[in-house]
Amino acid sequence: MMTKMIGFTGGTLDRGDALRHDAIGLAAAKADPRARLLVLDGYTPAYDGDRLAWTALPQDGSELALLGLDRDGVPHFATITGERAKGRSFDLIAALHDLAPGEAATYAGARSLLDWHARHGFCANCGSATAPFRAGWGRACSACGTEHFPRVDPVVIMIAEHDGRALLGRQPAFPPGRYSALAGFLEPGESVEEAVAREIGEEAGIAVTDVRYVASQPWPFPSSLMIACTARALDDRITLDTNELEDAIWVSRDEVRAVLAGEKGPFRAPPAYAIAHTLLSVWADATSAKP
Amino acid sequence: MMTKMIGFTGGTLDRGDALRHDAIGLAAAKADPRARLLVLDGYTPAYDGDRLAWTALPQDGSELALLGLDRDGVPHFATITGERAKGRSFDLIAALHDLAPGEAATYAGARSLLDWHARHGFCANCGSATAPFRAGWGRACSACGTEHFPRVDPVVIMIAEHDGRALLGRQPAFPPGRYSALAGFLEPGESVEEAVAREIGEEAGIAVTDVRYVASQPWPFPSSLMIACTARALDDRITLDTNELEDAIWVSRDEVRAVLAGEKGPFRAPPAYAIAHTLLSVWADATSAKP
Ligand SMILES: [Zn+2]
Ligand SMILES: [Zn+2]
Repeated sequence: MMTKMIGFTGGTLDRGDALRHDAIGLAAAKADPRARLLVLDGYTPAYDGDRLAWTALPQDGSELALLGLDRDGVPHFATITGERAKGRSFDLIAALHDLAPGEAATYAGARSLLDWHARHGFCANCGSATAPFRAGWGRACSACGTEHFPRVDPVVIMIAEHDGRALLGRQPAFPPGRYSALAGFLEPGESVEEAVAREIGEEAGIAVTDVRYVASQPWPFPSSLMIACTARALDDRITLDTNELEDAIWVSRDEVRAVLAGEKGPFRAPPAYAIAHTLLSVWADATSAKP
Repeated sequence: MMTKMIGFTGGTLDRGDALRHDAIGLAAAKADPRARLLVLDGYTPAYDGDRLAWTALPQDGSELALLGLDRDGVPHFATITGERAKGRSFDLIAALHDLAPGEAATYAGARSLLDWHARHGFCANCGSATAPFRAGWGRACSACGTEHFPRVDPVVIMIAEHDGRALLGRQPAFPPGRYSALAGFLEPGESVEEAVAREIGEEAGIAVTDVRYVASQPWPFPSSLMIACTARALDDRITLDTNELEDAIWVSRDEVRAVLAGEKGPFRAPPAYAIAHTLLSVWADATSAKP
């Protein structure tokens, strides 16, 4: 169904799960003269053309996370610095525009993991300091024994369709003119389909049915799993939750196609690396009125 | 596509998100003489027939989480006790067998939320004690200002198909004879489709393509989002990861249909409230060889 690569997918490293449980193998990987370290300035990646830049491993005892192995078995690492990620800088946005999706995927996984370490230095269970284990894919508390693993927060992102038009919303923080698919965090005790219906109900006051999964992507700001869906709206009367959205509009397939093609239209599209872009594109290309 | 309700879905309470941000409205809900409290013995629900049991709100200043509002606007709460959930007792398994899926959904949401409170009393960012806020849907740290929200861990659960047969695995902790769909936690930096392929590769050594989403469910042990998929296996030679599985087998549609119908077969099915049961049922009912 996807016509092109979804942003932040298609990474080519094998995560090398076995090495996370193999202290001797991991030590050998770190001693491998071919081993590579991701080059980051804060959380901005260095890159050349559409490829990430890598360098030799530091020999200073830095805490390292294993990102994975390439096709030749060369181990790739990133440094766990304890530094927190901030928002998307202009430099980072430029990098995300330039990088091949598979390269952006490697960056995204590293970014979410490193930032999780920086924000989770203490045990939620007892308050003691924790330390990385499992090659950087967890943190363990020596005081109470609890093991903590990187968080991934599922988010539903969706287009409700009514009479051939799609519902888009505008958050106050969006750049001027930008509209996108509605979205929200999935909560304990609900399915994807239920979260989609709840969010559209809460944000736009619209009841939906026929929720359908379209695609997913990891979203590293800070660490979400975006689950993109369509749904059928039972009517088109919008009741806006102004705490969430400053506006919501219905747009036609022709309008979405024009905007995605770079022509003038009633809104400005989300960036190509966002799954909202993929979702709009899939929706606009669908020939039937059924989402 | 679903022929019957998926376990832990179909809850009928409106989560009442607006009340979480409205201290006056929440106080009024707690003072509402119609307000109901979920009856739990530890984490075992009291119930009558296929319905959960509720009682009057305690007047002792107990910390309460707002589960939601029913159709008449009656607020429903659960007590945040700080007690941790344990495994599934015989009594709980009996309850899950008896409860209507929508009732089990309400229980599941409450269980995940209450257990999250019990395991997250401290700030992962600074180690200080935290306290509930947002009507029990978060914990705030007054020392560093960080807000923490309940965790939902996405898990992929999937059937690989090859030549009309489905791949099932057996974990050492399963009851005798039980086989189920393979499953694993989705990690930062991967999509649902990539996690499915990685897990089948890691656990059974099989490469897959054509990953397709089937359904989802919340799973309250302790707090997962199960994302059920099918995939097409490129071959049927199994290389078992014995750290994860003690066996894996290929089963035909006829065999799965027989087992789900309660007849004798090469394996014992997962419980009806597990999405693996739904996934097997959907797969077995599919007429084409394409998953
Ligand atoms: Zn601890
Ligand atoms: Zn704190």
